[in-house]
Order: sequence, then structure tokens, then C-alpha cells
Amino acid sequence: MLYRKWGSSEDEVVKYTSSVLSDKEIMDEVKLTMKVHVIELYLDKVISKETCKNVISVINSFKEIGEEYEDVHEALEDYIIKKVGKDGDWIGLGRSRNDHVATALRVKARNELLDLLDEINKAREKILEVAESSTDIIFPTFTHLQPAQPSTLAHYLLYLEEELSSRWKSIFSSLKLVNRSPLGSGAIVGTNFKLNREREAELLGFDEVIVNTISATSSRGDLISAVLEVCNLDLALSRFAEDMVFLSSKFVDLLELPDSHVSTSSLMPQKRNPVTMEILRAKAGECLGNVISLSTIYKGLPSGYDLDIQEMNPHYWIPIIEAKRNIEVIHSLIQGLKVKSSIKDETVLATDEAELLSMKGVPYREAYFDISTRVRQGSFKPSENFESSIRNKAVIGSPNPEILKRDLKDYRERLERDKRILKEYKDEIFSKLAQLRALEDDMQEG
Amino acid sequence: MLYRKWGSSEDEVVKYTSSVLSDKEIMDEVKLTMKVHVIELYLDKVISKETCKNVISVINSFKEIGEEYEDVHEALEDYIIKKVGKDGDWIGLGRSRNDHVATALRVKARNELLDLLDEINKAREKILEVAESSTDIIFPTFTHLQPAQPSTLAHYLLYLEEELSSRWKSIFSSLKLVNRSPLGSGAIVGTNFKLNREREAELLGFDEVIVNTISATSSRGDLISAVLEVCNLDLALSRFAEDMVFLSSKFVDLLELPDSHVSTSSLMPQKRNPVTMEILRAKAGECLGNVISLSTIYKGLPSGYDLDIQEMNPHYWIPIIEAKRNIEVIHSLIQGLKVKSSIKDETVLATDEAELLSMKGVPYREAYFDISTRVRQGSFKPSENFESSIRNKAVIGSPNPEILKRDLKDYRERLERDKRILKEYKDEIFSKLAQLRALEDDMQEG
Amino acid sequence: MLYRKWGSSEDEVVKYTSSVLSDKEIMDEVKLTMKVHVIELYLDKVISKETCKNVISVINSFKEIGEEYEDVHEALEDYIIKKVGKDGDWIGLGRSRNDHVATALRVKARNELLDLLDEINKAREKILEVAESSTDIIFPTFTHLQPAQPSTLAHYLLYLEEELSSRWKSIFSSLKLVNRSPLGSGAIVGTNFKLNREREAELLGFDEVIVNTISATSSRGDLISAVLEVCNLDLALSRFAEDMVFLSSKFVDLLELPDSHVSTSSLMPQKRNPVTMEILRAKAGECLGNVISLSTIYKGLPSGYDLDIQEMNPHYWIPIIEAKRNIEVIHSLIQGLKVKSSIKDETVLATDEAELLSMKGVPYREAYFDISTRVRQGSFKPSENFESSIRNKAVIGSPNPEILKRDLKDYRERLERDKRILKEYKDEIFSKLAQLRALEDDMQEG
Amino acid sequence: MLYRKWGSSEDEVVKYTSSVLSDKEIMDEVKLTMKVHVIELYLDKVISKETCKNVISVINSFKEIGEEYEDVHEALEDYIIKKVGKDGDWIGLGRSRNDHVATALRVKARNELLDLLDEINKAREKILEVAESSTDIIFPTFTHLQPAQPSTLAHYLLYLEEELSSRWKSIFSSLKLVNRSPLGSGAIVGTNFKLNREREAELLGFDEVIVNTISATSSRGDLISAVLEVCNLDLALSRFAEDMVFLSSKFVDLLELPDSHVSTSSLMPQKRNPVTMEILRAKAGECLGNVISLSTIYKGLPSGYDLDIQEMNPHYWIPIIEAKRNIEVIHSLIQGLKVKSSIKDETVLATDEAELLSMKGVPYREAYFDISTRVRQGSFKPSENFESSIRNKAVIGSPNPEILKRDLKDYRERLERDKRILKEYKDEIFSKLAQLRALEDDMQEG
Repeated sequence: MLYRKWGSSEDEVVKYTSSVLSDKEIMDEVKLTMKVHVIELYLDKVISKETCKNVISVINSFKEIGEEYEDVHEALEDYIIKKVGKDGDWIGLGRSRNDHVATALRVKARNELLDLLDEINKAREKILEVAESSTDIIFPTFTHLQPAQPSTLAHYLLYLEEELSSRWKSIFSSLKLVNRSPLGSGAIVGTNFKLNREREAELLGFDEVIVNTISATSSRGDLISAVLEVCNLDLALSRFAEDMVFLSSKFVDLLELPDSHVSTSSLMPQKRNPVTMEILRAKAGECLGNVISLSTIYKGLPSGYDLDIQEMNPHYWIPIIEAKRNIEVIHSLIQGLKVKSSIKDETVLATDEAELLSMKGVPYREAYFDISTRVRQGSFKPSENFESSIRNKAVIGSPNPEILKRDLKDYRERLERDKRILKEYKDEIFSKLAQLRALEDDMQEG
Repeated sequence: MLYRKWGSSEDEVVKYTSSVLSDKEIMDEVKLTMKVHVIELYLDKVISKETCKNVISVINSFKEIGEEYEDVHEALEDYIIKKVGKDGDWIGLGRSRNDHVATALRVKARNELLDLLDEINKAREKILEVAESSTDIIFPTFTHLQPAQPSTLAHYLLYLEEELSSRWKSIFSSLKLVNRSPLGSGAIVGTNFKLNREREAELLGFDEVIVNTISATSSRGDLISAVLEVCNLDLALSRFAEDMVFLSSKFVDLLELPDSHVSTSSLMPQKRNPVTMEILRAKAGECLGNVISLSTIYKGLPSGYDLDIQEMNPHYWIPIIEAKRNIEVIHSLIQGLKVKSSIKDETVLATDEAELLSMKGVPYREAYFDISTRVRQGSFKPSENFESSIRNKAVIGSPNPEILKRDLKDYRERLERDKRILKEYKDEIFSKLAQLRALEDDMQEG
Repeated sequence: MLYRKWGSSEDEVVKYTSSVLSDKEIMDEVKLTMKVHVIELYLDKVISKETCKNVISVINSFKEIGEEYEDVHEALEDYIIKKVGKDGDWIGLGRSRNDHVATALRVKARNELLDLLDEINKAREKILEVAESSTDIIFPTFTHLQPAQPSTLAHYLLYLEEELSSRWKSIFSSLKLVNRSPLGSGAIVGTNFKLNREREAELLGFDEVIVNTISATSSRGDLISAVLEVCNLDLALSRFAEDMVFLSSKFVDLLELPDSHVSTSSLMPQKRNPVTMEILRAKAGECLGNVISLSTIYKGLPSGYDLDIQEMNPHYWIPIIEAKRNIEVIHSLIQGLKVKSSIKDETVLATDEAELLSMKGVPYREAYFDISTRVRQGSFKPSENFESSIRNKAVIGSPNPEILKRDLKDYRERLERDKRILKEYKDEIFSKLAQLRALEDDMQEG
Repeated sequence: MLYRKWGSSEDEVVKYTSSVLSDKEIMDEVKLTMKVHVIELYLDKVISKETCKNVISVINSFKEIGEEYEDVHEALEDYIIKKVGKDGDWIGLGRSRNDHVATALRVKARNELLDLLDEINKAREKILEVAESSTDIIFPTFTHLQPAQPSTLAHYLLYLEEELSSRWKSIFSSLKLVNRSPLGSGAIVGTNFKLNREREAELLGFDEVIVNTISATSSRGDLISAVLEVCNLDLALSRFAEDMVFLSSKFVDLLELPDSHVSTSSLMPQKRNPVTMEILRAKAGECLGNVISLSTIYKGLPSGYDLDIQEMNPHYWIPIIEAKRNIEVIHSLIQGLKVKSSIKDETVLATDEAELLSMKGVPYREAYFDISTRVRQGSFKPSENFESSIRNKAVIGSPNPEILKRDLKDYRERLERDKRILKEYKDEIFSKLAQLRALEDDMQEG
């Protein structure tokens, strides 16, 4: 214990409220934040270059958070003071756990979000690749889990790409709000020392400063937004997972999942269970749990930092990291997906038949009832086959291979644009972080 | 009943699954969608100008959804057929409830989101106005609901503005994904008729087309994203509401809420209960209920339209409309807010005192323990007062009136930019919708 | 407005916080509560028999809640005062909206829960009936949506009965906590008037009094518990609904749902969509939304009544009433369910084959791998058929018709016991309520 | 890997779906389940006493789950086979991961629930003790966070006892449904071997068998119910925590929390932050996250075991264990709670004054408006003091010390009854488990 000068390490405060376990996951980000703070103190001439150099090298050597601390921040400061001695007492100046944890959480979330956005783009690339080679592979569509109209594997896969593209945009938007700096806001009103908050933001790779210090230290809205959007991605993936489970069920038998994605039963020797897709389907539920923990802990808290906010921490990064794994599993599955059989049901051509009648001058609703009656009487005979049905589709976004190939070009362009935007964004962040490393190197040399 | 040619209107299908009650809320948008479809059929020469004109005027006269229908779409088509006669049978061509409801929901959400974004900006404007005149009104800050450091009312209110600004950005981002067109996607694979999906999108005021028809007809990700971001706004408001309840509690007595926002008890004659702020605090819980209904209904559904998706409908617009009311209530409250008393606790100057010691050369942690001991021994006497404490704050975003006035300029600029962006976006949408109206007028005249 | 003597009916208090809309649903229960209060005042000799009689007949005539009121309680008292005159001013004595709404909500929930428990028992009865006549109808089981081992329709349906029986118990337990009286607790500490809380409880049909007046007026834990257990029922039903959707999918084709439960498409004439089961599946999502609204509004509220608690009201009764509809739909569906085809996959006999080898002395894991290899090589030939497989099952709860018939007796007994318990419980409540009616009649006559 | 005879340990199945990490928490329960299964095989003469003895001692020596396994069940069986040799191949007979994990989860939940119920009773005991000695300590009540009417600390604390008592009942009800045996149900339809499911249930300390094998292997409704009720407890605790945070806030200053429950700030030396109560308040949010993960993963799953269900596992025991810690923290806090100051606001006597007027013959609503006017004009002077106000309360459950002492007897009796019920229930379970130990001992000796 460092800050608290009463009671013992047996107190409920330490036993019940300590966050050291989950703080391990943001230790690097907390160290980075402290380094920028210390360098700022040096640039502001509060501490000497020598002290700055010493503290930074002590920060770099910090590896473990003792269980007797309330959190990583207390452990780190205590470690610095013990290693550096009296000079270490200076680093507490103008900073608080409140602005430091807010900063570390945003750096952590930013980094994980960047990785996730990368993975999504890689999966999109794989989907486009598989789609390009499957524009003629007949595949059914379903509505209400009943066979609807003929389509192709390419068309089905582009549904997933469309979803990933939309969610990518949402997540990228939320990233830009996350990537803003709370550092230099002290506990809640800033400090009497002239910390250059804009310079601190720059060194941490942030886009800009969150101005108001109350908001900077105690708002979690931007981080929550990121998790919400990630959860929305998981929801889209859960629907794809459900399709995979259904389409590979032995009684449906339209898809064969790769061996590396199915397992068996300990009692029933014949089983091929779609276990990765079941876990993927469950993951959206996991993520919603995180969303609800975040939201219900946060709701109705008074302004300013409250310790409830600490309990929210793991719920930011867990869903983002899990989402990345989810995307990887989908990527891996799509690579090995096989269409096992074609559509076994000719009534999926009923709509084409009705449209054919309309082409010949029968108003659609009339044509529809005509075909409907034939289907129910069992006398329906389609004049088209699946291939011609698909070729007849006439609108953008449909499975018609000719149209779809044009669409594919647009999809490809959209993906390239997203990849470029992400790369530029990362480059900007990295070049800022490089300034910090340069300062650090300079320090160690000098 | 129109489509279903078996059973009776006593069937569970009608009794248990009908959405006519909630469909009332999207009737205008469903009618708009149908009009664009019908005009598209005319422009594609499927129906004559005469038929088109008749159908449109019948659509305009549609006012009520009978309880015997499954939904508004069936009711509307049946109404058209009954009024227009045989020619009405053509309008079922190349469209489905699936693409029509997806379109109507997006139009509805877009309109409500535009209104909400407007209201937020108005509330921000009011906040800036009140903040400008309260840069010197002493006001405490809190962390852990314990008094923290002195601040000003302006600084406190800018915390809310900062939150509103961030959430405004998130909601605007989600709006742009919502405002895309699913129309022309049929039930799931499009149609054999050459509907011009891009023209349809234009006439509806959409930014672009959602290409893939499976995604267009059955994805709700964009709409969910909008609700998630709106709910995140409500969470921020719930924290503000909690502050108001606390700060106006008789034992705290720092704020007086306007008379129009407090009520009394039926048994206890002395009560002034902060009822609007209690309801506001609850609203985030209401919104989270909508989020959970949406997410859990959606999760794990197979691709393609499933009727579960219909049950999601009211959960899109209710939270957006409620959020608008929440913003209005805050707007009204801020207008009449009065600071009742100043800070009664000098220990909120302890941090200043420790920083003062540091200014004189005492390392911060040492100074901190010194002051900490004095406070606990009851011997703490601040050498500053609240005013000088505030004037000494030296970082961006702090309550120092001089810095805060500079910050206010940035806030003002940011708000003006958001207002401009929103106006331009709305103008674009309106000019597209004007094209539709022109076509309609032309039709009625010609 | 009655209680609030400032401001106008244009105030936010009325516009934003009024609950008159949802209060309509508990108007009868609020009237009942007021009657018991008034009779108690009479029995305590606070008001005369004449006044009591007049007030009660005015309460009986109360039909509409004006929009200018904060809630039904204010509207009702104002109505009484206006109709009865000066004497009406007495009824505000010793009561508060806090204890009255708590009472009304519990009466409402009790009544709806009793109805729900009845409906569940009726559905269980129907299931047992259908199960009794289908102990020999071969039906597959699934794990991981892959065919597992042969079973019968009876065995499958008893799975649902087992679930309903468990949830029935949970709901009944929660009902007993709900059915306790908060009346006579005033706003929070009771009153200086000697209201006989036990007599009030008796007249309202409650089992007992909730002693502590803070808990009585402001706790909602018992009501929340009831909704949680109802939601758990909906979760069980959602799994059954998913089965129905899957098993009646054209590519699986094991079940035919009754015509009255399927609908069609507006574009695709061949469709038979399992719409009631889709809605049923969604209902658990709706219910979870209610649970989350309740929980997140309630969480972290200070003790004593807060207006947030008013926003929780509709979320108690909506899920209970909806659950009753859900049970009715399942009841109706089970009545008309038809098995369409038998199992088409002999590998579901693989486990039997392995167990057969074990019977002959081969250790199970060895036998398992032997059969597993045969299945993967396509050389698996079962020596049993589906019928003998089922007859060979040797444990309680298995589909073996002989065992299952014994189990059915136990199920039947369990149901009869539950029906008896419920009937006795209802009779007790009704006989208490009859005392109230007797008093009322006596009053009107005398 | 044991069961899966294809692919490699690099497969997604192992990397993505393995549950070994969380399975550590149920290792003991899985071993117990396997022992009972093995003893049953011996009692059924499938394996020899020698084999049974060997296997049991190998099970006892099982300590670690290798990361290359899908789950603890596979790891354990593989370990047994490797240690015991060929005879170990028998233990796979008639059992499945499905019935074994369902059994282990119920044993785990039962044990944790028993502990929790014990802790709740201990906390209730402490509350009654403190209440008994504080029936005269004046303490305010609040509604809408505004001071309401005078009460006592005893009365306030009994509010918490009342809540704990209600939730205790709910949790105990759910425990009885949890404590039922799924063992012997195989994968889904049982087995051809005559396992005595009732004997297995007895040896595991279960109350009875869950008959239907589909329900037994794949339903999680009873476990979900337990978590729901535990979460409801956490909600009640969160309200108490909120009170503590508010009442100990420096500007309110009614309570002093024990030193062992408060911490300070790293920047602000004067702070005494109520950190345990903040964490406690957050815990209900954590628990709701678990509820939502459970519910949304579970909702809409087809019948029979799906791997999604595995992801639910940690969400059963985490909330129960956490709830126990929450109760312990409250217990510890109540022990050291101090009332710091009395009510500073005489208007809390306004209701008493109005009731006094009514006692003198003024109808209540008239008296109410009279007092209301005086309060608003600042001319209100109470004729009672806090002590007499409390003594005048005349209803059951009110703070009147005389009534409250009678109530305390009832509370005490209720607690003693609950303690007795719990003890008897535990004794019954332990005596059943003792039979298992006797069999085991007999085996090892013989």
C-alpha cells in the first residue's frame, strides 16, 4: 500500500476492491502512460533529465503487480519510489490514477481495435477470393428457414462481406473517438502545473485531446461505443454461424465443414459436430454479457471517477480480443468450406415461374395465386432450371453471375479503400509513437 | 388476408403474429416505399402512367390497417387492389414485404435520428450559453461522491457538452450507415425485372444502395448500431440526472431545480422531489431493455428474413424518439438551474495546498502525505481560497476561467461545424425527396 | 393536479413523468387497494359508515384517468374528493402512493401469475395426452443439430413437459413471495393511525404482511423474481420453438405444423413459413428486454421510493401476460402436430451397435472406435432397427415404451399434485376476497 | 485428444473451443460424478471390484487438465485409460460428457448455493444483533433522495434484513430444483445398460432424479433460475450500497463507514472514498452480465446438447461465489457502521404535524395543504420532536421502538426457522454423500 495511511493489507479495501488481477492486461499501457507523464515533467523542467532517465528505466523494469496493492498504478508508483528513491516522489505530481487509467484503457482499446480491423479486412479478402471462384456454384437461399429462391455460393458469401464491411465502418468510427487523450486531467480538474496536454496526446499516438477534464477522467462513453459496435459485429457473425450449423446438419447436408472445425461425441461414434460454429454462435452472447455489465455498472453513476468504473475495465478489451478470434475462425472455415449437394427442391423456382407469367402479361398477384395453387396441388412444374433462374436476375446485388462480377469489382474497391484508410491511420499513430521512442532513446544515450 | 389462401382469420397466424398495432408507426414510411416502387414500375414501363397515377392516389388515401391483416404491407396491397381493381395486381411484382419493411424502417430511423441530432445541437447551444455566463460561479466537483476540488458551474456544464458532442458524432456515423437503400432486393435474391435500385435509392433520399440482396433484405445491423449509440447517449444523460438528484437533495443543497421539474408527495407535504431527473435516469434502463430485445431476438437467426425480425421493429424507433424527449427535458432543466450555495468544505483545497508545497520544492508524494496528515488531524488550513484555486489551474480543459474561455471558443466552433454538417446532410436528403414529389406532382397533373 | 400546488399542467412533471397511460392496466387493482384502505379507515372509526359507503360507490364509478394527472392515484383521489366533497379529504390519511402502488402491483402480478400457472397446467395436460398416444412413434433426437439416437415422439414431448413442470415450480415459488401485503406502510415509515395491516392483507387475499415499511413501500425484489422466472419459462419455450422451425423446414421435413400456424410469402408462392414458432422464439428476447429494463432501472437506486420505480411498472405484467399467450400457442400447436417422416439415417444406431459389442465383452471405448471407423469408412451396418433400439433402453426417463409408460404415471401424478396445490391456493385467496365483497355488500345494503 | 480420430491438436476445435481453462473450477465435481458412475458400473456387475477400486484411486490422483484436450471429461477419461490400461476402456460405457457435465454443474452450484445461504443467514444474524441495540438511534428515511420522515437505525437495518430474508427464500427454492440428478441419461436417450439412476442420485446427494433424459442432459433452466435469483439478491445489495455511498458523502455526513472500507486518492490527500460499497454497487452489473450471457447463449438453441451450452458454464458459479463475497463485505461493514450525526432538517416532521391536525378533526388533505403552505412559507414549526414522532408510529413494521421490538422477535424466529431448514437440508445431503464415502472406503480396504 502506498496512498492509504491507515488500516492494514487485510482490509476489505485490498481484499475486495483490488484490481491487480485484471490490471495485468493493461500493465504495458499503464507504463507507457507513466513514461509520457514523466517525460512531460522533464520537458516542463519539474524534474531533471537524470531523474527522468532513471525513472524511465525503472518503469521499463517493472514486471509484476504485488497482490497487496489496490491497483497497478499504486504498485508502479511504489516500485518507482523504492527503486529511484526520494526523486521518485516527484512523479505523483499533476497526475492521478483517474487520468492515467483512462489513458491506458484508450491506448489498449485502440491497439486491439486496430488489430481487429486488420483481421476483418483479411477475412473480407478471403471471402472475395472464394466468391470470385464460386459465382456459378448453385446454392439455395432461405427465408424463415424454408428454401426461398436459387442463388450461388458467391452471392451467399458476399452477404457476409457486406455485413463485415458495414461493421468495419462502425468500428472504425468508434476507434476515432476512442483515440483521444485524457492525459493531464489530474483527478478531475487538471492541475496547477503547466502540463502540455497536447504534447502528451501526440506522444501517445492520440488524434487529439478530450478537452473537459471531468469528461476526460470519468467518461467511458467512447470505450462503451467501441464495445457496442464490436458486439454488433458478433451478432452478425452469430447469424453466419447458425447458417453453418444448419447447412451442415446431416438432414440438410448442403455444406461440409472442414475437418479441423468439427468434433465428435464421447458416446456416439457417428457424430460430426460443428463445434467451432456453435462456439462462435455463443460468442455474441458472451459479448452481450460484457455490454450489459458495462452499461449497468455505468448507468446512473455520479460524475467524476467512482470505483465502480474500475470494474468495467476487463469488459472493454475482452470482447475486442474475442472478436478477433471469432474473425480468425470464420476466415479459417471459409477457406475449407465445401458445397456438398445442390438444391433438392424445385419449388424454389415458383417465384421465377410467377414472374415469367407476368412477363407474358399476367398481373403479378394473379400469377402468384396461379402458381401457389399449382404448388399446393402438387402440379407445379418449373419451366426454368436453377441456372437460368440465376441468370435471369436483373438487379444490382443479385446472384446473376454477370451482375455479381460487376458488384465484385465494387466490393474489391471498397475493401482496398478501407485497407488504405486503416494503413494511413496506423502509420500516423506509429509516427507519433516513434517520437516518444526517439525521446526515450535520446534520454538513455544522453 | 391477402396472401394466405388457407385457414381463417381466427388462426394463430393472425391472432399471435400480426404486427398491425406497431406497424401504425411506420405507415407513412411504408406508403412512401410503395410509391417509389410503383413509380419505378412505371419508369420501367411495367405499368402505365394512368395506373401509376391511380395507385399513387389510392396509396395517399390509405389511413387504417385492419386487424384481420398480418401486417401493414398486406393491408396496403389489399386496399390498393380493392380500390384500383385488376391493375392493382401488378404492384406485387418484384417486391416483397422483406425489402419494403427494411426500406421503411431505415427511412423511419433516418428521420427520427435527424430530429434527435438537431435536438442535441440545440441543447449544446443552450449549455454553451449558460456556461459562458457562469465561468466564475464556484461549484464543487466530486469523485466517489466525495467532494474533490473546486471548480465552476461552467466547467461542470461543459462536461455535459463534451459528452453530447462525442455521442453526436457516434450517432451521426450510425445514421450514415442506416441511410442506405435495400429497395429492389425482392424477398432475398432480387427479381427478374430490371428495377433500377439506384434510382429508387435516390428518390427515397438514401445515400447509396446496400448491394447484396440477402444483406439488404434481412440484415438489421445498421439499425441496431443506431440504437446502440442512442442508448450510449442515454447512459451519459443518466449520469447527469444522478448528479441533479444528488446535488438538489436537501442535505446537499447545492442546486435548485426549476419548479417545473419537481413534484411533491401525496403524504408528506414538505417534499420537493426531482421527478424529471429520476425519470431521465430510468430512461437509460428502458433503452437498454430495447437493446437487449433487439440483440437477443437477432442473435443466432439464420440468414434471410425470419418473422422474429418483425418483433424487433418497435425497438428501433422507440429509443430514438425517447432520447429526443430526454434531450428536451435536459434542455429545459438547464435553462432554469440555480446554484444554491457554495462549497462548504475547505478540505477540497488540500490538493492545491500539496501542489503549492511542490512549487516550493517539496516532492509531490511527500507534500501529499504532509497535507494528508494535517487533514486527518484536523489541523489543515488552506492558504488559497476557491477562487485562486481555480485561477491557478494550468491545463487545457480545466476550470481556470481564462483557459475555459479559450476552450469555449473551440466548443462553439465544434458545435457550429456539427450544425453545418447536419444541415448539409439534411438538405441533400430533402433535395432527393423533392425529386420524388416532383414526379408525383407531374403524375397528378399530367 | 391535486398534490402539487405550484407550476402548471404544462410542466415537465406532467408532460414527461406522468404514468397515466400505463396506469390504465392497474386501475382495477388501484381501486381495490383504495377500497380496502377506506374500509380500514371505517373499521378504525376514522370515517363514518356513511362516508365509507359513499366513497366506495364513487370508487366503483371511477372509469377514466385524465391526462392532466401525474398518475392514477392522484386522479382517483381527486375524483373522490370532487364527487364526495369535504369528507373525501379524509381518505388521504395514513396512505401514500408508495404503499398503494406497491399493493396494486402485487395484486395485479398475483392475478396474472395465477392465470399463467393455470395455462401451463393445461398445456402439460395436453402434452401428456398426446404423449400417451405416441409412445411408439419413432422420432429422432439431436445433439449439435446432428442426428443423435432414435427416440419417440412421446419421449420428445415429455422433454417439454419436464421443462414446464420445473418452471411451474419456480413461478409458483415466486408467486408466494409476491402475494404479500405492503398496505398500511404509508410513504415509508407507516403512520400514526392504527391501521390494522394484517386485516388489510387478509381483505386483499394476501398470504401475509411484509413487515418492514421501507421494504414494503420501495422494494420490488419479489416482483422482479416473478418476472425472472417467467422469462426463464420463455427461454425454455424458445428452444422448443427453434426445434419446430428446424424440424418443419422443408429440407428436414420431420414434422408438419398445423395450417393455422404457418403463413406464406408475398413474393414466393410456394412458402409455408412457421411464423407462430418464429414469434414464440422471439418472445424470450422481448422478455429479456423487460428483465433488463427492470434490473437496470432498479440497480443502485437509494432506499425508499424513487420515481424511477414507476417506470418499471409495465415491465411486470407485460411479460406475464405474454407468457400466457406463448403457452396457449404451444398448446394449440401440439394439438395439431404431425410427424411427417421417419429417421432417414441409420448411423443414429451407431451407439446401440457399440453398446451391443460391449454387451458381448468388448470394453466400450474399444467398441466405440471400432464402430466409429466403420461409420467413417461407410461400412457401418446396424444389427438393430429403430424399434429395437428404443426397446433396449434400460434407464428411467428413456424412450423405451415400457419404462416411459411407467414414467408417464409419475408425470401425471406430478401434474395432478400441481393442479391441486394451485386450486387450493386460489381458493384461499378467493375466500379472503369474498370477505371484502361481503363487507362491501353489507355497506351498500346498510 | 481421445475421442476425435482425425485432424491435429492444432485444429480450431482445440484452439477455439476447448474449455479446459474454466473446467478447472469443476474438476472436483467431475471427478465425483465419474466415481459414482464407476461405482454404479461395479454395482451393476459391468466391471469388477478390482477394476472399480483401481479406477477410483486413479480418479483421486487426477490433478491437471492438459491443454491439448477439448475438456476435463476427455482429459480425465484419457488419464484413466493411460493409468489403468485396457480395463479403463469400460468406463466410457453408458455415460457421456452430456450427462456428466450436467451433473457436475449441478453439484457445483448446489455446494456454492449452500455456502451462500449460510452467509446470508450469518449476515442476517449480525443485522438483527445491531438492530436490537439501535432501536433508539434516530436516523432519517429518504424518498426521491429527499429527507422523508424520522426513523431509527434499527428500522433502517431491518429493511435490509427483510430483503435478505425474501431473497433467501427465492434462492433456497431454486436450490431445490438444482439439486436433482441428470446422471445416467447418456448423451440424450439414456443407455441400454441398466444403470440405477435413483441410486446414482442418492450417492451424489441429490433430492431426486430429473426423469426425461433430453431435459436431464441439455436443460439448464434450473441453473439459470438459481443465477437469476442470486442476481436479484445483488440488486437488493446494490441499493444498500448506494445508500452507504450517499449517507457517508461528506456533504451528507450521516454515517461513518469503517476505516477498513474506505480508501483515498493518489492526488487528493483529503479523500475518504467508500470503495467497498462502490464495488458492491457495481457487482449487480457484473451479475447481470452473467445473466445476459447465460440467457442469450441459451435462447433459441435446439433441444439436445449444443456446444454453446459449454460457454455458459463459468456464468453459473461466478455469480454465486461473488454474491457470497458481497454478503461478507456487507456483514463486515455493518459490524463497524457508525451514525455520525442526527437529522438536521425539521421539515421531516411535516407529515406528523398534518396527522396531528387530523387527529384533532381536520380532514387529512386539508391538513396536508395547511402544513404544505407553512413549509413553503418558511413558517413551519413542528410540535413534535423526532423521538415522539417515532413513538407515535402505530403500525406493524414501523420504527416505533415498542412495535419494532415485537417485530424483532418475529424476524428472529424467521431467521431461526431458515437456519434450521438449511441445516436439515445440508444434513440430508451430507448423509447421502457419506454413503458414497463408505462405499469408497470399503472398496479401498477390501
